[in-house]
Formats: sequence, C-alpha cells, structure tokens
Amino acid sequence: MVYTAIMGYGTIGSGVFEVLRENRAEIAAAAGQELEVKYVLDLRDFPGDPAEEKLVHDVSVIVNDPEVRIVVETMGGLNPAYPFVKACLEAGKHVATSNKALVAAYGTELLAVAKEHHVNFMFEASTGGGIPIIRTLYRSLAGERISGITGILNGTTNYILTKMDRDGEDFCQALREAQKLGYAEKDPTADVEGHDTCRKLAILMAMITGKEVDYQEIYTEGITKVQAGDFLYARALGRAIKLVGSASLCEGRLSAWVVPMMVKAENPLCGVGDVFNAILLESNMLGTSMYYGSGAGKLPTASAVAADMIEAAAHLDEHVPFGWSSEKLSVQPAEDNVCRYFLRVAGRPEACSGILESCLGNCESVTAAEVAGPELAVMTAAMREGDFRKAEKKLEAELSAAGCRIVQILRAE
Amino acid sequence: MVYTAIMGYGTIGSGVFEVLRENRAEIAAAAGQELEVKYVLDLRDFPGDPAEEKLVHDVSVIVNDPEVRIVVETMGGLNPAYPFVKACLEAGKHVATSNKALVAAYGTELLAVAKEHHVNFMFEASTGGGIPIIRTLYRSLAGERISGITGILNGTTNYILTKMDRDGEDFCQALREAQKLGYAEKDPTADVEGHDTCRKLAILMAMITGKEVDYQEIYTEGITKVQAGDFLYARALGRAIKLVGSASLCEGRLSAWVVPMMVKAENPLCGVGDVFNAILLESNMLGTSMYYGSGAGKLPTASAVAADMIEAAAHLDEHVPFGWSSEKLSVQPAEDNVCRYFLRVAGRPEACSGILESCLGNCESVTAAEVAGPELAVMTAAMREGDFRKAEKKLEAELSAAGCRIVQILRAE
Repeated sequence: MVYTAIMGYGTIGSGVFEVLRENRAEIAAAAGQELEVKYVLDLRDFPGDPAEEKLVHDVSVIVNDPEVRIVVETMGGLNPAYPFVKACLEAGKHVATSNKALVAAYGTELLAVAKEHHVNFMFEASTGGGIPIIRTLYRSLAGERISGITGILNGTTNYILTKMDRDGEDFCQALREAQKLGYAEKDPTADVEGHDTCRKLAILMAMITGKEVDYQEIYTEGITKVQAGDFLYARALGRAIKLVGSASLCEGRLSAWVVPMMVKAENPLCGVGDVFNAILLESNMLGTSMYYGSGAGKLPTASAVAADMIEAAAHLDEHVPFGWSSEKLSVQPAEDNVCRYFLRVAGRPEACSGILESCLGNCESVTAAEVAGPELAVMTAAMREGDFRKAEKKLEAELSAAGCRIVQILRAE
Repeated sequence: MVYTAIMGYGTIGSGVFEVLRENRAEIAAAAGQELEVKYVLDLRDFPGDPAEEKLVHDVSVIVNDPEVRIVVETMGGLNPAYPFVKACLEAGKHVATSNKALVAAYGTELLAVAKEHHVNFMFEASTGGGIPIIRTLYRSLAGERISGITGILNGTTNYILTKMDRDGEDFCQALREAQKLGYAEKDPTADVEGHDTCRKLAILMAMITGKEVDYQEIYTEGITKVQAGDFLYARALGRAIKLVGSASLCEGRLSAWVVPMMVKAENPLCGVGDVFNAILLESNMLGTSMYYGSGAGKLPTASAVAADMIEAAAHLDEHVPFGWSSEKLSVQPAEDNVCRYFLRVAGRPEACSGILESCLGNCESVTAAEVAGPELAVMTAAMREGDFRKAEKKLEAELSAAGCRIVQILRAE
C-alpha cells in the first residue's frame, strides 16, 4: 500500500480521486501495490463528497507525513503550487502535476530538486491531456533523433475552429458556444491567444532536446483574427485551419512558433476535430508518427496523472532520469521560419493581381465560390517569414494606392 | 558498455544494426550506457558489409558468451527462431523480437521462461511496426480499463486498399503495384488474407487482458474480395474501406474479428492511408486515443527493436513485469459480433428492393452515380452477424428466384 495526497480538489483533482477509486484494481496491478489517498488539500470543504474525510487545509500535514510518498498537484497557477510542490519534493515525495504553467515556468528547477532528493517530478498530464506523449518521448522514442513536432495542443481553440469550419460561424459566436459548453473559460485569453499551446510546446521541446526552452521566446499568435470566410478557401484547397504549436530541430538550432496554420489534407492533423488534441512527430528512424486523444477534460487528464502515480509507485525508491537540464536552448527568431502564405485582398481583382505578383513572386490563385464581394485570394510559394514581412509592407502601400486592402493573412504548409 | 547480438541479418536485422550505429549517442544517453553489437548471426556471409566482422554462423557462440546480455531476434518464422530465443532466455539474456508469428505462437511460454530467468522477452516491433503501442499499453495505459481496440495493423493491405480507392484499380492491379514497390511479398497470402493482422490483434488483446488469446480463434477475412466499385459507394457515404482487426471487451467477454470494414468519416482511422498503421483504443477514463505511424519498413521496425534494447539495457538485472499469463481467454463466436452490413445486389432494382426489406428489415438505400449496370445497394441497421447469416441464406434464395444476385457484402460501422 502506498499513501498519496492530492493538492487541489477542483475538476482535475476530483477526477484523479475518481480514477483511483474507479480503476483501483487495474492501478494496483500495474503499480504492484494499492494506491491509497490519505489527504486531499483544498481551502474549501466538500460536505457529502467521497473525499470529505480526507480533506485537510494545511499543506504541512502532507509535507510532514512520512507515510505519504506520492503527491498530486492539481491546483493550477504558480502560487501556491510552486512552493507546495517544491516542499513536497524536498521532503522526499514524488510529485505528479497537471499544471503546464508550473512546468513551463519552474520545470527546470523542480526537475533538479527532484533529482537531488532522489524522487521524480512528473507531468504527463501537463501536455496533451490524456495523450501519453511525455512518456512516449522518454520511454519509447528516447533512441530517436526527433527533427520536428507539430501539435494541436489546445482543445478549446480546436473546438472553436472546428465549429467555425463546420457551421460557418464567426469567432465570437463559436467562442460563446464553447463557453456555454464549458470548453472555454470566462476569460479565454490563455487559450485563444495561444499562450496555453505555447507553454505546452516549450515543455515538449525541452523533453525532446533535454535543455530548457523558454516559452517566452516562442513567437505566438492566437485564433482571434481567423474569419469565417477563411474556411471557405481552406475547404476549396482541401485544407483545414488549425492552431498549431510547431517546432523543428536542425543541427542543434531550434525553430518554433504557435500560429493558426492552413494544414494540408494529407497531414494527419487535418482531420483532428472538436476538443481532440494530436501531436505529430518526425524522427530519423521511425519517420512520421502521431499521438491522438482527449487533450483536456476531467477524466482523461486525471488518467494521465494516474499513469504518473503508477510509475512513481512502481519505482518508489528510484529517480527515473528524464526531463531536461538547466542548459538553455534559444529559439531562433521567427523571421527565419519558412512557410507559405495565404492572402485575401479586397478590391478590384484586376488591380491587385499584378501588385501581388510583383511583391510576392509567383502566387497560386485560390477561388472559393461562396465568398461574397470582390476579393482576390492567393497562396505564395514557401518563403522566409522575414522576407514575407518585408514584402507585406511594400504590398500594403501599393495595394492601398490602388484602392485595395489585405483582408487576411494566414500561414500555410 | 552492454554487449548485444543480432540473430538474422535480413531487412529488419540490418536495420537494427544501422539504427544502433546511426543513433549511437541518443541510444547510449537513453540506456545509460553504450550498446555494442558483438555478434551478428546469419547463415550467409556479407563481404564488405559493416557487420562482416561480427558475423557468426553458430548460435551457441551467442548463447554461451556471458558478455552478451541482450539478443535481438529478426529471423522471422518459428524455426529456428523459437529454439534460439528460448536458449537465449534460458542463458539469462534479454531478447527483443520483431517476429509476430513467434510471439503469437509461443509468447505465453517465452514470457514465462523470461520471468523464470529474471530477464525480459520484448516484442514492441511485432505489432504496429514502429508505433510504440506495446509500451504504451503497459507503461502509459496500465491503469486504464480498455474496452475496445480497432487497428489498421497491416501496411500491405492498407496500401492496396488506398490504391484501389484513389486510382480506381481492382485488387489484382493494386496487389501487383504493391509487389513491384516491395510492399507485398511474392506470396502475399499472409497479408491479404488477414493472417498477419489476426496475429497482431491476438498479441494486442493478450497485452490488454493479461491472458493468452489464441489467434486461431479469431474469425479472419482478407481483402481479396473487395471490388473497385465498392469504393464508389464508400465515397458516396463519406466512408473508407479498411482491413481492421477489431476487438471489444465487455464484462470479461472478448469479441474479436479481422474483416474489411466500411469505416465512418468521423473515425480517425478513416484517413489512415498508404502503408501507415494506426491503433484506436477506447478506455474508461482516457476515452478515445489513437497511435499512428509506419507499420512496417526496415528502419521504423528496427527503431521499435532499439527501444526494447534501451529498456533492457536500462533494467539489465531486472525483470519488468508485463505481458500475459498462461490463463486462456476464449474469443466469443463471431456470430455474436454486431455491425451494419452493406450489400450490392445486381438485377432489376424494382424486383429486389422488396426482398431486401423483407429479409433484412429497414435498410438505408445507397447510391453512387458512377456505378455501371442495374444495381441496388443498401446498408442495414446494426445486427448480429449470426442473424445476418441466417437472413442472407433466405435472401439469396429469394433474390435468385427473382433473377437477382448479391454482388458484394461488406461489414460497416
């Protein structure tokens, strides 16, 4: 029997409690012994709840109880999650967290503290929800040289984009639906502006490279400017618009960004809809592989926490070496990233077509029958972001002089 | 430094040699020490090959060398793979194999021998090629209760079906193309008749249930009867035709079969094309998850063998508990499986439509504009296979009396 504690009895924390109870037998078989929740830490009381009698309000009860060997952190945010987790690790307890903000901000330090105290700081649930991507990276693909990763890492934005595509809604309508269904928070900034995806991408890149990646160095754009009409063109092209966190590694240089991207039909990410997440990897021996599943939600995320708890219980007196060192790996400037660009220009097509060619080189023209108004849409060849930005300035000026204007720019594979 | 040996220097064996050389640094970092190939066993000589100086022709050199701690079996077939692997395990060596025939036929015994000698018998590469599905099942999803699995587990047949769909070819044309490209063997029976998929499904079900599953109990149909015209209907329905190995577990009862199936558009397996494989899982906490990648090929498969070698090297003196016991779990008769049925009937539509309804109940009529000849196609509601078989007999007799005949029957989700 291993005693455990759960810090934070919100959605994920109560999910962990439920998973441990519901799959008790499977978890005991996998861990080699039963997992028993001894304490649940929360400021609130939960009268009538199955966790009621386990509730404590003071973290020191957990930290000072030597019987507790595994602690789950599902409070979210940095404070008090950070000092609580650190105190648990220092007290020689394994910690499993679902908190990507914590891992992205303090992962390097907490991994070092865990190593020093011969325990594990685990965070399968921080990225990709229930998708076992962290463990796949350090258990199954540890011998691969990974050159690229592209992920749909945020369920909220993927739901919104799927809804816009399927029902022709605009961003605000789709966001409201997502909020109504509980998929988006009241303040949806972290999701829709791409911050959540950015943190998860940084965690994945640190896992892959073994070095610290600062999420603040990753160029990040959200989906608030994606328009209903964009999906008409995407469909005409057989593509989908997805918010991707994408990174590539070439000779030790790391490129990365978080942007809405027109994904090709043959990309396995193209069909990933609703709140699902998926992570596409390119590696030198295995080639392309993809990992798909529920990227969020109470039970899927709790299931990933439980997987960490099983691993901790099976290696109670062992530090499993994985994660990253304090060595930093800088992200290359986004100006060096290369992609194609999809542009919509409003105005007289006969006036702007020549201007587009002269500023952007050979473009492929894109038509979508259902689009209203005089509008021209084109897709450029692959070019450097920096070159595109320069060309864009010139383009804007020339289009404006001709009475036309850019309505939309989206990156494309 | 850990010494290893490779038995069988064919496509996969030489791939393992290449992966170990090419990703030497990554593998050493992951395993905690360097892996060095000491011997390569093959009856042939390979003058000029990098493995030339490691070649031995007598397995006892490997079995009797106490320095060799990890042995790879990539010979294929049962003899001499089975006695060689057993001898290595009995000599206290870990074994990693890519040989699904060996695992399906002797897995139970070899797992027991490995346990007895405190080593591991590992077979990540036997199922799903490079997709890390075996490790995901015992490392990441060990605490989940898995209720269903559907896999595209054979790259050859998936290539043939994709080709038939995309280019309108018939089975024989597409098979010839696959043979020309090296995707199909001269004698393609094991692939196209579903035997390969069947063995892999049995391995996956044994992993999931922890019990022995006899692949010979799994009802298996191949793809030789799939017709070019079927894809026209599938497309009209937004579906794809895939050879799936599918199983479900309900209250300890195991249902399973290998059949060509009309898969729905919203099923993530629908878009899995070419030689790719994918495994879709349903489990009680995580929900739906999918694992996608190269299901075959020299380097992807070798990469999975290397992952097993890394795990063995990291746990050299440890038996990692996973796999299944000698307890048998029977597969329920296929008559109890439930699905929908798609039928094409040639003859006068006005004559057969009433007969179809009277024998099969309410059917959905399916039309595909491009189909030549007077033909009626319908999709039944979900029904038991046994009930369908009974209805089919009656249907055949009545249709024949009306001058019509069944052209095709395919199962559908």
